[in-house]
Parts: sequence; structure tokens; C-alpha cells
Amino acid sequence: MTDYVPPLADIEFALHHVADLDELAGFEPFAHADSDSVASILGEFGRFVSTEVAPTNHVGDVEESRFADGRVTTPEVFKRAYRGFVDAGWGAVAFEEDFGGGGFPWLVGIAMQEMLNSANMAFAMAPLLTQGSIEAIRVHGDEMLQSVYLPRLVSGEWTGSMNLTEPDAGSDVGNVRTRAVRAQDGTYRITGTKIFITFGEHDLTENIVHLVLARLPEAPPGTKGISCFIVPKFLVNDDGSLGARNDVECLSIEHKMGIKASPTCVLDYGTSSDGAIGWLLGDENSGMRTMFTMMNNARLGVGMEGLGLAERAFQQAVTYARERLQGRAVGAEPGTRSPIIEHPDVRRMLLSMKCQIEAIRALCYFDAYHIDRSRWHPDPDERAASDELVALLTPLCKAGGTDLAAEVTSTGVQVHGGMGFIEETGAAQHYRDAKITQIYEGTNGIQAIDLVLRKLPVRGGAVFERLVTAVRSTVDALSASGDDGAAIAARLAEATDAVEADARWLAEQASRDVNGALTGASPFLVMCVRLVSGWLLAVEALAAQRLIDAGEGDEAFNTAKVATAVFHAENVVATVPGLSPAVRTGSQRLFAVAADAY
Amino acid sequence: MTDYVPPLADIEFALHHVADLDELAGFEPFAHADSDSVASILGEFGRFVSTEVAPTNHVGDVEESRFADGRVTTPEVFKRAYRGFVDAGWGAVAFEEDFGGGGFPWLVGIAMQEMLNSANMAFAMAPLLTQGSIEAIRVHGDEMLQSVYLPRLVSGEWTGSMNLTEPDAGSDVGNVRTRAVRAQDGTYRITGTKIFITFGEHDLTENIVHLVLARLPEAPPGTKGISCFIVPKFLVNDDGSLGARNDVECLSIEHKMGIKASPTCVLDYGTSSDGAIGWLLGDENSGMRTMFTMMNNARLGVGMEGLGLAERAFQQAVTYARERLQGRAVGAEPGTRSPIIEHPDVRRMLLSMKCQIEAIRALCYFDAYHIDRSRWHPDPDERAASDELVALLTPLCKAGGTDLAAEVTSTGVQVHGGMGFIEETGAAQHYRDAKITQIYEGTNGIQAIDLVLRKLPVRGGAVFERLVTAVRSTVDALSASGDDGAAIAARLAEATDAVEADARWLAEQASRDVNGALTGASPFLVMCVRLVSGWLLAVEALAAQRLIDAGEGDEAFNTAKVATAVFHAENVVATVPGLSPAVRTGSQRLFAVAADAY
Repeated sequence: MTDYVPPLADIEFALHHVADLDELAGFEPFAHADSDSVASILGEFGRFVSTEVAPTNHVGDVEESRFADGRVTTPEVFKRAYRGFVDAGWGAVAFEEDFGGGGFPWLVGIAMQEMLNSANMAFAMAPLLTQGSIEAIRVHGDEMLQSVYLPRLVSGEWTGSMNLTEPDAGSDVGNVRTRAVRAQDGTYRITGTKIFITFGEHDLTENIVHLVLARLPEAPPGTKGISCFIVPKFLVNDDGSLGARNDVECLSIEHKMGIKASPTCVLDYGTSSDGAIGWLLGDENSGMRTMFTMMNNARLGVGMEGLGLAERAFQQAVTYARERLQGRAVGAEPGTRSPIIEHPDVRRMLLSMKCQIEAIRALCYFDAYHIDRSRWHPDPDERAASDELVALLTPLCKAGGTDLAAEVTSTGVQVHGGMGFIEETGAAQHYRDAKITQIYEGTNGIQAIDLVLRKLPVRGGAVFERLVTAVRSTVDALSASGDDGAAIAARLAEATDAVEADARWLAEQASRDVNGALTGASPFLVMCVRLVSGWLLAVEALAAQRLIDAGEGDEAFNTAKVATAVFHAENVVATVPGLSPAVRTGSQRLFAVAADAY
Repeated sequence: MTDYVPPLADIEFALHHVADLDELAGFEPFAHADSDSVASILGEFGRFVSTEVAPTNHVGDVEESRFADGRVTTPEVFKRAYRGFVDAGWGAVAFEEDFGGGGFPWLVGIAMQEMLNSANMAFAMAPLLTQGSIEAIRVHGDEMLQSVYLPRLVSGEWTGSMNLTEPDAGSDVGNVRTRAVRAQDGTYRITGTKIFITFGEHDLTENIVHLVLARLPEAPPGTKGISCFIVPKFLVNDDGSLGARNDVECLSIEHKMGIKASPTCVLDYGTSSDGAIGWLLGDENSGMRTMFTMMNNARLGVGMEGLGLAERAFQQAVTYARERLQGRAVGAEPGTRSPIIEHPDVRRMLLSMKCQIEAIRALCYFDAYHIDRSRWHPDPDERAASDELVALLTPLCKAGGTDLAAEVTSTGVQVHGGMGFIEETGAAQHYRDAKITQIYEGTNGIQAIDLVLRKLPVRGGAVFERLVTAVRSTVDALSASGDDGAAIAARLAEATDAVEADARWLAEQASRDVNGALTGASPFLVMCVRLVSGWLLAVEALAAQRLIDAGEGDEAFNTAKVATAVFHAENVVATVPGLSPAVRTGSQRLFAVAADAY
């Protein structure tokens, strides 16, 4: 185990050169969110997570959350860390002041999420799920629900949970069978069993606010008949105090490969009564809209889990590679042994981790920046444009961030050699933790389908084309900026051509053979992630080069940024055109191997 | 957990259409190894592993090997399985009859290794390490050592262990500090501590034969001063009975992410005396040669671990995808739910697993076939040619097989969705088990260095060029064999051009900037694996097409083989040229990011 050092320099660079924090500070609600205030908050939060949360990661993995008699006991160290989190109001920073929030941009909240996930992803899931609940209630709740729940969710005094999955309704959420019946007082009675409920039961807070998808008796079948309900663990009295225990019970928690400190619960609603008492959130049968409000938030959030895990694994690998002596590097003094960071193959692993982390950070922060623009830009056209871009980028952030985690945590183990496979080292935990991120909140395969069938076709591909145009304009700027820029530009240009052509091919397929488009969806998503994240890293490299040319900024940082972007272009962006044949496999070739021939 | 069904059809196809089992049966020692006898042995062994060994895999992971008071207790189910293995003489099949072996080709033994690893990789490590010891003693031992140890290692009555690693000597084996001192009776006294010793202590057999690398007092530094010793756990009396306990003690075993049933031991030699008693194997200071005899064997063996794990994970994913209903596939009856194998994105995952497994199987079996040719072909030129080819292919088998395992076991979890992350499902175990294979017996980075700096330059690249010529000749045959063949040929041709050009570039770099060649080694190895395994899968596809055209063989199998090869060409081989820029990164660009800028 090594300490976690918040990567504030790279975060700040992304906030200013990929996102535009100063622009956001010009929007009405963010007048106080100037660069210095943001830097101060991030610095302070970085200190909090590195000293109070990061040390809980390994011990939490060993101690695990435990279940007995309907109760979940989280690791002992979690209690203090969570109390510290709530006492300082960290969960509130990026929410609106109306509900007790700090009124900072979502972008700042996303940077904080990255750090909290690096410190301890299993722990960070409690605030993440709470955030999803806040979003859903903020957007779809009436004044009563907002006033009862938002202040205490925003403060972190209570946590939230999302109850979607059932044994027969996973990716196929339209199959939900949990039932809701109207009661005479306007509330509902909820009965059914939900599985895979993160922090569905725990001992960190007095109350838990469950958001539950269920079906009314006469609801239409499928996704059009799903409604969303608020079901608190304890009912809330009119004076805000806690009332009776609601009829929701934790039956068990799962024995998982990773994030062992995060309890994954089976929750049973209405076992001992005619149903748990629930309040409708939004309209009847519009639960899917509410769910997508939670999910879009959560999808970027899961991307940040991936980024956070990758950064932690990377830091641990770098530390090890600097300290571990093996063999003698080329050019080292005879008779000496070299730290393995001096061996090219190890150095390649580290740079491969570094460049992809920085590229995906740029991608996710760019997405978060446009979330803020989509809400608060004074010009409605700009809001709409950013909103469209966010819809397009969210599957890239979710899949890109989590694929990053799987790859980088694996490389992290590899850098450690045999020691990486020993649990005490801590590298293996990151690898075990990472795998779930590719699965939940919509598997990465679902993200690919979302991208190809829902997001690409928006306005006949116009949103996607605007993104392509932006990439090409960066290519032009790079081409005019010296050898390094030209090297990046060449790879980006080839990749852009391939992605643009494949997008057209997919759109054409989708119109006459949906399975053909679906066959190519996953490799196309990978192409998009590599291209768009590579583009944004190149945008950073351009900014770094300008600073170098102007003799400004931290020269070592800026030089590394340019070199990192060049490596990314040659090693990651360069692989994009080679994925085109996979995109264009077509359903006929895929299904040419019969199901019984496997 | 699902049952394991030995993939005998695909194994047989590889034995006859990539390897040439009939040719081997024509060699003097293999006169009895006709196709029917081999098929019968493989069928029988398949039954043994699927009924007696496969059921021990999950329970072994849960029970783990345990350590207390210097003793290791393996999972209870291992005892019966190991006894069955020894009683049937399965470990002896591929060894020479002179030492009690069955006299079958190594190729047959490799097919058996694949199956044993699919059944239970942690269990299979005991026979694998034993095999390495047998090889070393067979090649380097004198008559006395051979007669004492070989019969009982070949039978499996005793197991072997390989003692290379020390806390400061991992990849850098030249740094070994364990000491050996000559005794007056011609034996040696060994003192030192070894780590990561697989099955270094256990309760499956009465005796364990440790092969130990150590350094004589006046030995030259580095790898040139290392000698190899046989150190039995119990000394062997002249009548073959067990004598006194030797001074080797197990201090602890590691707490690992995977292969938890395989004890990974810290062994201390000579704690309570002037040293454990050892016998020199080979000459003094020639331990590296002995080690490489063990290692080359073990490297293909680790490739087979990867293949075996991948096959098991694949079968489990296919079974799940056939049974699990989610959503409605395009074209399915309205109102029905479809098994997820009918959804294109899931089908893509399965075909991606299948095509790479078959390609890597072809690669490893081709390698094993040439091992047999290198030993037993009557023509010395043919023996030499096969020997050179084996040297070139071994790093591809080791890295290719283990990268396959990492990817396929990850995809296996992914196919299961959230259930894959739950330990009871069993998919996660394969993922945890797989990671170590990329690390031990020379990390895959070490394999890449071996390929680029040692194997490529052999005879000025002539061995490599002969391989390229063989690929091109298959390309010609494919081009003339219809649309499917032409599609494969096009991808293979592009990939061959890229690999050939990069090999020249690397050779040129190696002559003036070794770090430049080392920088490109890992991506070049990946290119070679994809090309060469893709080539051999294409060789199989050609054979399958010929059978289809002739109206022979199993048409469903042959049709699937061709379609699988086309998919592999478009999805795997097609990515090869895009890795060239990574190969040509060069040391200047790699080291442009300073070590302290990470």
C-alpha cells in the first residue's frame, strides 16, 4: 500500500484548458466559484481524502461489510471517515444553495468524486448513490418531497439507494415485477424483492432513502409501465424527526470479488405488511425518466470510479517502480542495480497508464463542464448544445473510464511482478475492485448500444458531426504547432476519418439491419473513446506548448504533458483505424457461427 | 459453476491440421501413437478430468491451501484427485518409456495439460512443476540422479519444485544469493531463502524434489555463477526408501488473489544445520542452462494454463448465455424473452472468446508438435529447423496464452453481468486465477525482450523470415479459396507486411539503441501473437473448407471453423498494423517524460 497524493496539478490543468472554469464562474449561480476558491476547496478536500479516507481502503477490503440478523456492519474505520465527510459538508459542495448545497459547479464535484474514488471506491459509493437520489428528487420531486429529503441527503446525514434490479430484470429493466398499489392517503404500498442494492442497508446513517422502481396494477407492460417511488427506511414525521420503521428488510448481502466493504444488498419490500409505504416520484408510469435522471448522473459517476481507481493503481505502480531494484538499465553504472522505472518495458507500462489516465480525465471533466453549461449558460442555444453533447459523451465516459480501470489496474499488478499477486501489496485489490465498474449502471455493451442506436442518430448525426468538426479544428492547430503537434495531428486525422466513416456505415446499417449496427457497437465505442479522449489530451498538449513558448507555467509539467500526448497518439489513437473491420463485421458474419456450435 | 466438457473435436482438429500427428507416429519412439490410440487416451483423460478434477476447482478456491507449523494442508478434495491421477499414470503419458513413461508425443501431453488446467489450474501446477523437474534431470542429470528421481517423478509418486526466486532476485535471477558449499562426499550444503515456490511444501506426496539455484563460494557474479542442485525433502536411501528429513523448511505461504489452492511457499534451506544436502545437476556454474531447460518447458506450460483457463471461462459463459433470458432479440416472437446468446453484443463477446481460444490453441499445439520434431525427426536438419522454430514460438505461446486468459476470463465475467462479480457464480475465480499467468515464468514483458533481443536475431533473422514465408504461402492458398479465404488473406497479408517491416526496424534499432528496441518489444510481441495464431487458425480454416468441398467431416464444425477464422481475421488480425506506431515509439519519446514527472 502506498499513500494517495491528489493529482491536483493535472486536475487544475484540465479544469482550465479542457473545461473552462472561468467561463462557469461567469454564470449567475457560480459567481463565488472563482479559480482560487475552487483550488482551495480541491486542495482541502484532497488533504481530507488522503489523510482520512485513503488509509481505510485496504483495511475495508479485509474487514468487509458484514451481514447478520437483517443488519449490515460496515468496516469500523468507515464510521469516522463518513462522519468527517458529513461534518465538513463535503457531499454538499456541488449542489444548489437552495437545498443547503455549496453552489459550486458540477465540474468541481466531479473532481472531488475522482479523488474520493481514488481514496476508497467502496466508501465513495455511499455518497455516489446519495447523489443519484438527490438528482432524481431535485428534478422530479414536488416541494414536499424536496423539503423533506433534499437537505438531509445533500448534507449526507442520510444516504440514498437506487432499487432497479430484480432477479429477472437486469439490463432488461422493463421486466420489473415489484408492485405498487395506491393507498387512500395518496401514498403507495410497495411489495417485491430487489437485488444488487448498493448501500441498501448499513450503519453509517440513521435513515436511508430508497428510490424504487415498481409497477402499478394496471400499468402497461415493459418500460412504459414503470413508476418510481421514494421509500424511506424510517418514515419521517412532520417535524422532521424519524418515525416508524418502514417495511423494508435486508435479507442478505453478496459475497463479491471486489468492493467488499460496499454492502450489496437483497432488499425485501412489504414482507410483514400489505407493503412498504412509498411516495410517488414524478408521474405514474414515468419511472424510466426518473431512472435516467439517476442513471446519467450515475454513469458519469461510475466513469469517475474507473478514473479514480486507475489513478490510485498508477500511483502505487510508480512508487514501486521507483523503489524496486532489478537488473541494470542500459547506460547505468556497471555493478549497480537500477530502479525498474529505468527499464524501457516498465517505463512503457507506466507511460501507457499515465497517458490514458490523463486522456480519460480530460474526457470526463469535459463532460462535466458541459453538464454545468447545459444547466446554467445564459444562452438557451448554448444550453441545448451542451446538453446534446453530454448525452453523446456520457456513454464514452462510463465505458472509457471503466475500461481504463480494468486495463490500468491490471498493468499496476504487472508492474509489481509476483508481489502484485499477493494481497498484502494492495495492487490486486484495485484489480478486483475495478471489474464491477464495467458491468453496473448499464454494462459497457449497453453503453455501446446507447451510443450507436440512441446518441449517434440525434438530429441526423448533427451532434456527432459537430464533435468531429471540433476534432478537425484541433488537428489543424496541431499541424501548425511544430513536430510534436504534427505527429499527434497525423494520428488524430486518421482516427477521425475512420470514426466518421464508421459512424455513417453504422447509421446506414441501423436503418436496414439493426443487428448489423449492434454487432459493431462495442468496437465503435472503443474507437470513439480513444479518439475523443486523445483529442482532449491533444487540446491540453496545445495549451502546454503555448505556455512553454510563452515561458509561463511549470515547464516540467508542460513538457511532460506534450510528450505524454505524443505517446498517447502513437500508442492509443493510432490503433483506432484498425478497429474499423471489427465495426463492420455485420450480423451475417457474426451469426454465421450457429448458437449450438459454441 | 458449470461442468467442463473437454473440447475434443477442436483439439483433434488441431492435432491433425495444424500439427501432424500422423507424421509423429512415423517417428521411431512413437510407433504406437497412432491416431486412434491418441484419441482414446485423450477421451479417457477428458473423462477423468471432467469427473474427478473439474469439481474440485471452486471448492479448492474456497478451502485454499493452509499453512501451520511448517506444514501445508491442501484442500481435502485434492487428495483423492491426485491419487486418481497417479494411479492411472496420467503424468507419465508423454515421457519416455525408459523412465517409466508412456512414450507418447509431447504434443499429446500438451493436449492433456490444456484439459487438466481447464479442470483445475491450481491443482495442475503440481504436475506442471514436476514436469519441469523431470525435464531438467532428464537432460542434465547423471545416471545416478536419473535412476533415483525420474521413475518416481514420472509416476507422480513424488512431485518437483523449482526454486529460483529470492526477495532480491526475481526477473533479475543473476542476483541469486543462496549459497552452496562442496562437502567432502561430493554433495553440497545449501543455505538460503527462496520465495514464490509453487507446491514447495504440501501433503499430496511423501517426498518433494526441489531444484534449487544457488551460488558456489568462488562463483563469478551474475548469471554465470549460478549452479543448480537437487535437494529432496527427504533423503533417499540406497534401496530407494525414504531416509532422513533434509534441512529445508516451509516458513509460510502467500495470501494470493487467485490459485488459492496452490501453495506458494517461502522455503528456508539450512536453518538448523550447515546446509540442506544437495546434489549438483549439470556442471558447476551452468545453472542457467538447467534453468532454461525447466523454463522453456514451463513457459509453454504456462501458456497452456492460460489456454485452459480461457476454455473453462468460455464454456461457463456460453452455458450462461444460453440459459439467461433478458430482453427480446431482433426477430424473436413479440412477448417472448430471448437467451442473451441471441443478442449481438453478447454473441460478439462469445465469438471473440471462441476465435482467440482456437487460434491460441493452434499456436501452442503447433509449438508442441515442433518440440517433438526437434527431438525425434530422423533428419537432423529437420530437427534443427524445428528446434529453432520452438525457440521463436515459445515466448509467443507463453504471452499469447496468458494474455488470452486475462482477456477471456474478463469477458467471461462480463457475459454474466452482475452475477459474474459474485463469487458463488465461479466466473470471478477464473479472472483472479488468470492474472498470475502473465507474471510468472518470466513476465510477458520478459517474453517480449526474449523475442526481440534473443530470438529475432537468430541467424540474422532467417528463422523469423522462414515463418513469414510460411504465412505468405498460406495467404496465397487462401486467396485462391473463395470469398471467406480472400477476406482472411487480405488481413493476414497486411499484418504480415507490418510485422516484417517492424522486425527489420527493431533489428536495426537493436544494433544502435537497445532501449529503442526494448521500447517496442511488448507491442511487437502482441502483433506476432495475433499474426501467427491468426495464420494457424487460417490454416485450420483452409483444411475445414477442403473437407466441406469434399463433403467430408462434420459439416457444422467445419462451417463454424471457417466463420470463426473470418471473424478472427477482421477482429484480431486486422488490429495488427495499428500497433506499428507503438513499436516504433523509440526510446527518446518514451524517456521524454522524466522519471520524476510521473
